[in-house]
Amino acid sequence: MKIAILGTGAVGTTIATKLIELGHQVMIGSRSNTNEKAIEFVNKFEKNASNGTFEEAATFGEIIFNCVKGEFAMTALKSAGKGLENKIIIDISIPTDTSKGAPLSLIPELCNTNSLGEEIQKAFPNTKVVKTLNTMWSTLMVVPTMLKEGDHTNFICGNDEEAKNTVKKLLHEIGWKEGSILDLGDITASRGTESLVLLWLRIWGTTIGTFSFKVVN
Amino acid sequence: MKIAILGTGAVGTTIATKLIELGHQVMIGSRSNTNEKAIEFVNKFEKNASNGTFEEAATFGEIIFNCVKGEFAMTALKSAGKGLENKIIIDISIPTDTSKGAPLSLIPELCNTNSLGEEIQKAFPNTKVVKTLNTMWSTLMVVPTMLKEGDHTNFICGNDEEAKNTVKKLLHEIGWKEGSILDLGDITASRGTESLVLLWLRIWGTTIGTFSFKVVN
Repeated sequence: MKIAILGTGAVGTTIATKLIELGHQVMIGSRSNTNEKAIEFVNKFEKNASNGTFEEAATFGEIIFNCVKGEFAMTALKSAGKGLENKIIIDISIPTDTSKGAPLSLIPELCNTNSLGEEIQKAFPNTKVVKTLNTMWSTLMVVPTMLKEGDHTNFICGNDEEAKNTVKKLLHEIGWKEGSILDLGDITASRGTESLVLLWLRIWGTTIGTFSFKVVN
Repeated sequence: MKIAILGTGAVGTTIATKLIELGHQVMIGSRSNTNEKAIEFVNKFEKNASNGTFEEAATFGEIIFNCVKGEFAMTALKSAGKGLENKIIIDISIPTDTSKGAPLSLIPELCNTNSLGEEIQKAFPNTKVVKTLNTMWSTLMVVPTMLKEGDHTNFICGNDEEAKNTVKKLLHEIGWKEGSILDLGDITASRGTESLVLLWLRIWGTTIGTFSFKVVN
């Protein structure tokens, strides 16, 4: 499958690496197609890796991962322009507000009664936004078996059932078991999964090491 | 121990029942000492149960549980007046904003960069606020073994270490194992545990039945 990864940070490159290993064709998108981090990343692979602008990557991808830092996500997606049309956007970013000090908080307009996932869906009504993988450390996203043989929870939400099914298949391919994926319904559930970062950061501040959340029932 | 329970709802009466069973003396506090729900509750027990105003209950208790609905918690605590002085307040309430429609959200002034736990600590600086038990269904609070022999997580936070240790002892008595209590540090961690309700409600909306969160590491 042709997949676009928007963002050259740890999340983007971690997911891109896994997808290339799985045999997918990946284009990394960033502000310019001469982005050094993107070029350095692409050069590590013999095939299936390329880079381009946000728009070039989005146009290339059948599925688009938004791995841009939350604060810049809307700007990046807007610059992807028509490349987004009718595509599935897998949104992993968290709208943290780095303009404020510690403890880290969310952008006020994108929490509680709104979320970044919803905001993206509203801004790009011809796309199908699926929020998932956004409640854990990046390596866990692609190596869920790092903890308890993968027996922890990855939440998923979005308005389009078919798009969610496509994303679930991709998650299975990555290594997520059926029973570890919990579908929360429409994209407004992003309010819950995005705000989990407030708790995540506090747990990360304790000494328990790598962790994830599991819904126990 | 003499314990005050502020609030006559499901959370308050569930916790009161457990504490009475454990042999503690419990006074239920509400707006008036003729509150019918409180009297009906008290009459179910031969001993160790009584009721009174918020102030009478707070004055009686060595430890005070705030089980009042989040929106009314500050008003209730203010009416408890001097009864709160130098006491531990175990704050279980969630500042949900029922003035808005579904999906339920938090009171804007008490989320993200603030929380009810912090607000109570600021308003009553001579008390020691400990936030705990607020991320689960009320019966699970007092019967943690209902799920996976109690192997799920109860978060705790607060500024005073001694107060937290006292509360942890009470949690052990209720049935919480040492390894299932995760200390997140000071009271600002309430921002994380209170906002977990946004996710909790969405999981509750699925079909998985009784559930809790476990931090897996």
